[in-house]
Amino acid sequence: MRDAAVLAKLRAMRIGILTGGGDCPGLNAVIRAVVRSAHLHGDEIVGFRDGWGGVLDGATVELPIERVAGILPRGGTILGTSRRSALEHRDVVRRRFEEQRLDGFIAVGGNGTLFAANELAGEFPIVGVPKTIDNDISGTDRTFGFDTAVHIAAAAIDRLHTTAESHYRNLIVEVMGRNAGWIALHAGLAGGADVILVPERPFDVADVAARVLARRGRGRGFSIIVVAEGATAKDGELVTKGRTDPLGRPLLGGIGHWLEGELEARTRAETRVVVLGHVQRGGTATAYDRVLASRMGQRAHLAVHERRFGTMAALRGPRIELVPLAEATVPNLVPDEELDLAEAFLG
Amino acid sequence: MRDAAVLAKLRAMRIGILTGGGDCPGLNAVIRAVVRSAHLHGDEIVGFRDGWGGVLDGATVELPIERVAGILPRGGTILGTSRRSALEHRDVVRRRFEEQRLDGFIAVGGNGTLFAANELAGEFPIVGVPKTIDNDISGTDRTFGFDTAVHIAAAAIDRLHTTAESHYRNLIVEVMGRNAGWIALHAGLAGGADVILVPERPFDVADVAARVLARRGRGRGFSIIVVAEGATAKDGELVTKGRTDPLGRPLLGGIGHWLEGELEARTRAETRVVVLGHVQRGGTATAYDRVLASRMGQRAHLAVHERRFGTMAALRGPRIELVPLAEATVPNLVPDEELDLAEAFLG
Amino acid sequence: MRDAAVLAKLRAMRIGILTGGGDCPGLNAVIRAVVRSAHLHGDEIVGFRDGWGGVLDGATVELPIERVAGILPRGGTILGTSRRSALEHRDVVRRRFEEQRLDGFIAVGGNGTLFAANELAGEFPIVGVPKTIDNDISGTDRTFGFDTAVHIAAAAIDRLHTTAESHYRNLIVEVMGRNAGWIALHAGLAGGADVILVPERPFDVADVAARVLARRGRGRGFSIIVVAEGATAKDGELVTKGRTDPLGRPLLGGIGHWLEGELEARTRAETRVVVLGHVQRGGTATAYDRVLASRMGQRAHLAVHERRFGTMAALRGPRIELVPLAEATVPNLVPDEELDLAEAFLG
Amino acid sequence: MRDAAVLAKLRAMRIGILTGGGDCPGLNAVIRAVVRSAHLHGDEIVGFRDGWGGVLDGATVELPIERVAGILPRGGTILGTSRRSALEHRDVVRRRFEEQRLDGFIAVGGNGTLFAANELAGEFPIVGVPKTIDNDISGTDRTFGFDTAVHIAAAAIDRLHTTAESHYRNLIVEVMGRNAGWIALHAGLAGGADVILVPERPFDVADVAARVLARRGRGRGFSIIVVAEGATAKDGELVTKGRTDPLGRPLLGGIGHWLEGELEARTRAETRVVVLGHVQRGGTATAYDRVLASRMGQRAHLAVHERRFGTMAALRGPRIELVPLAEATVPNLVPDEELDLAEAFLG
Repeated sequence: MRDAAVLAKLRAMRIGILTGGGDCPGLNAVIRAVVRSAHLHGDEIVGFRDGWGGVLDGATVELPIERVAGILPRGGTILGTSRRSALEHRDVVRRRFEEQRLDGFIAVGGNGTLFAANELAGEFPIVGVPKTIDNDISGTDRTFGFDTAVHIAAAAIDRLHTTAESHYRNLIVEVMGRNAGWIALHAGLAGGADVILVPERPFDVADVAARVLARRGRGRGFSIIVVAEGATAKDGELVTKGRTDPLGRPLLGGIGHWLEGELEARTRAETRVVVLGHVQRGGTATAYDRVLASRMGQRAHLAVHERRFGTMAALRGPRIELVPLAEATVPNLVPDEELDLAEAFLG
Repeated sequence: MRDAAVLAKLRAMRIGILTGGGDCPGLNAVIRAVVRSAHLHGDEIVGFRDGWGGVLDGATVELPIERVAGILPRGGTILGTSRRSALEHRDVVRRRFEEQRLDGFIAVGGNGTLFAANELAGEFPIVGVPKTIDNDISGTDRTFGFDTAVHIAAAAIDRLHTTAESHYRNLIVEVMGRNAGWIALHAGLAGGADVILVPERPFDVADVAARVLARRGRGRGFSIIVVAEGATAKDGELVTKGRTDPLGRPLLGGIGHWLEGELEARTRAETRVVVLGHVQRGGTATAYDRVLASRMGQRAHLAVHERRFGTMAALRGPRIELVPLAEATVPNLVPDEELDLAEAFLG
Repeated sequence: MRDAAVLAKLRAMRIGILTGGGDCPGLNAVIRAVVRSAHLHGDEIVGFRDGWGGVLDGATVELPIERVAGILPRGGTILGTSRRSALEHRDVVRRRFEEQRLDGFIAVGGNGTLFAANELAGEFPIVGVPKTIDNDISGTDRTFGFDTAVHIAAAAIDRLHTTAESHYRNLIVEVMGRNAGWIALHAGLAGGADVILVPERPFDVADVAARVLARRGRGRGFSIIVVAEGATAKDGELVTKGRTDPLGRPLLGGIGHWLEGELEARTRAETRVVVLGHVQRGGTATAYDRVLASRMGQRAHLAVHERRFGTMAALRGPRIELVPLAEATVPNLVPDEELDLAEAFLG
Repeated sequence: MRDAAVLAKLRAMRIGILTGGGDCPGLNAVIRAVVRSAHLHGDEIVGFRDGWGGVLDGATVELPIERVAGILPRGGTILGTSRRSALEHRDVVRRRFEEQRLDGFIAVGGNGTLFAANELAGEFPIVGVPKTIDNDISGTDRTFGFDTAVHIAAAAIDRLHTTAESHYRNLIVEVMGRNAGWIALHAGLAGGADVILVPERPFDVADVAARVLARRGRGRGFSIIVVAEGATAKDGELVTKGRTDPLGRPLLGGIGHWLEGELEARTRAETRVVVLGHVQRGGTATAYDRVLASRMGQRAHLAVHERRFGTMAALRGPRIELVPLAEATVPNLVPDEELDLAEAFLG
């Protein structure tokens, strides 16, 4: 043990870390894991503030082990985040690496952050950690943050059931997911939804209404519809944030509110919408996400320590493994087969 | 004890019960309490389905003690509910009382149901139980269902804090409360909101924006705004469900979405809205509401048993007491003084 | 408003605060409320660390408004606490008041702390805030922390129901409450327990077993028993922490484990025990407790500001009022009548 | 689609199902999934009551799709369960298969149930579904019920942190896990425990005390210790349920209470224990477990439908696959490597 410690000191590394993109439960667990693993191996961690913005601006904070005490259950990220990109500023990135004498770098983020990380990985010693509540990153069985988002959305659906049943009405739950329907699918399955609408499969609003009416015909006077924010109607009747009325004023609400109006008109049943929004991505992480994020953070640090750059920590079966960073750049959508299987649970 | 049982049998009563108005966590706890208390005293309970609708249509269900096993933690009401009124049909009410040989009647409901109950109380042996998540019924310190609604809304606000702080944005939470701001006030206080907007005090959207900007000036780049669905802007710029665009199409979304647009424009900060909707009124009740509802249900049965008609079970300090039903017909709004005191916790 | 601010500055006070006794959800909400209310009125707050210990040792911390940002949802107390007493050291108390130039003092605590506060109130300008998860302080309808403890215990009982029902066994839940059975009573009512054992009414274990067997006779093969840690068996068969076996080794476990053995032997049904312990008094407070604690903290500051010393903030109906500190020194036990009423919900 | 329906009808099967062993969140989700998938494919499901007991006694219940409405969020199992075995009664099993004209059988259970299922699989058309909160079944990445158990235990640990920190004491959490430490490990990691004791690695109580004291030396006056019920002390000082005092009376409490006494004596710090017991295995399942259980149930039905007997539904990466039933008979313990990696997060 003592020898190992000596050895560790000899090859001690200084490692940067940033968290980029949207908020995601588990970010602080990753940071804590990286710092604790580094501490055990004699490495130093320096945090960059507000994602790639901290790299561009040179905004850093030292992260000794005391700095991460107590952050495990906290939502958000102690490093802050942003959607800025460093891709067009490789010289600045290089300067920061030199200024900070970095031996390695850990980029924690979603598609955007990891795309940038992959681009820079040819030139810089980078390891990635996939992060998105949407679960839409390839290369890993699952991303942290997703379980928390599903947990919150499913809890909301649970609560709606008794109201729907007691009052015979349609209840719509709009959940996150611009491109991928994973949250809608899993929250819908967990909550026992009757209809699940995802971006991967544009829907026909007449079909949705028909399903609701068919349920009524079977004596079920209520329906619960889960819709991903990025789901679209087949006939192009999508209501987006950008759509305006004839006077140029923006239409309020998203796909959930649009469906509310359509279903109320088509089924002649009281219809109400719930928009969970950022509640799904803030706050403390579930135990599942805390463990997954911790294990990924530890693996990412060890990857840097072992100089296995250009990789990403990933869940593969029961293990955390390293996969090429490039894998993260392929979007992970819900496969057709899973949507077909889900039919057994609907209606 | 045996004598008491004999006595109870001698004066055994047959008592009707209905639950009216919107869904409210705790309804099943009331029904269970009435049935269990009646069982102990040798009385019979008959339930009327779907609120006053069950009285009009003669839709009833016997409620022996076995029927209420396991319903305590369940949301909704096993009797169903509706917003129909029996006020114009006193002859039908009389017929039901005769058909069912009712010695007493328990009406569990909100303003509408209790108003009807009070009107009928001159003619029929009625006892009321106040029920509303909005806490806007006078005569009782608090109504059951309110604690659950506040609990859910406050949990959502808790989750938003970390996202707001990590990302420097405005987050709006639209909560229930058409006429009274109790939910907004308590959820906002419990969640540490920066601005709370209630129906009792029309707001000036420029003031709200100014508060947000003032916070930014103090280094707080984020704000959390809680708005009751019934809150209105002073200058009449209220967006309601009924408002349409120039082509006659309804505008989507409520006050929350309207504020989202206004604040984004006025503060030039990303602004997002959460609409909790029926999640606040469905599902299992908090322990507080289960105990309150159980105690009120028991008191209501005992009131009937003691022939103290024309009264309502009410929380008064630590005790459940009987108050005149008429008290329930006065709306309970948030007093000015409480809104003033809340200022200490805002911004 | 500006005039008020000027006035406030003129009469600005310096006020001490301490939190004493056991942990209790809502303590940080009280501290935050005191500090925010003081800030609004131009007063200064200084915190004493670790209860009366901080007064004895002179361990203080200034509490400007920035210091209380973000503490509302956090369990514990940022001031720390202890069970030390200052009663025998009035000269030290006097010295601290002089050193710190205190114009007033807020003592937040349970029976012990408030007893001391009341004793010192003749000599020093003190205001109290009642604090106990046990709800056993008189003068207030309810204490903060109690709702959280009940919430947690009731959630545990909820979970046990399905296991009890699927497996036909007895499940015992030992909850807090050394002298008062409020937590056992309310958690038992909220969770639908079959037997509730409280310190106020010593029980006969043969009766408990008979109840369980009677349920079995009615086709209910399972029972859930809630027992307060301070409940005692009539025949003196109480197992306490202090009891030892014949070799002088301490017997393990409390009343819950003792009941487990007794009931398994007497009912010949598998019996299991859950000991919730400190889970009931740690962690974030419920929305109810946060609001109650915040209102009490604010009222306590205003009481000092108005020089209404020797009082305590108390919940009276829907309002927070001031009552004489002396009222807090009378224990608040569950009245016989409430225990009798609870019978309707048991078995 | 219509052709498929016709085809399905032609080859309609009658399939038995049982749930065996201890309670486990997700059982009703499995039953519902089997029934819904069967309904879609024109198959009939018949449930056997109380595990293998229902096979021995011939206690069955038809399970049309209406029977599983609303059971998804409910804990327990609508079929009941028991620990009886049919292994010695193959003739009875055969008789039931004939009586009920079964074309296939789904056994949902843990080590015991699946061992029996595997033994019988040579003779009968059986498919298994692994079920255990302990996660100690091989062949699948994870079992349903585990996430719920970890979720509950981690939530308890979260609550203990603030009490531990405010009061400088040791808090012990005894969690389930007789043979495997998965719950202790994951709950401990998710909750940020300082010491985790598992059955796979007998501990030295002097080492545990030394860790606690070392933390104190680093200014951390509190420690949180998670101990699996099946963890043992190296020196054989294990306290089991069976151990008695010199008068032959059973010692109360388990390993948690034993540790409480030892640590209090060795660290001279107040030490308290929490025994979560059956709270971990009762009640509603997490969203994760509901989805996993639903997918496994559906896969098990499809396996029967496709006559792939002798298999078990298993999570493999992101997919549900079929593995030989025999794989389930190998216990899945926490590997040394994972325990070593966990060290980075402790102390």
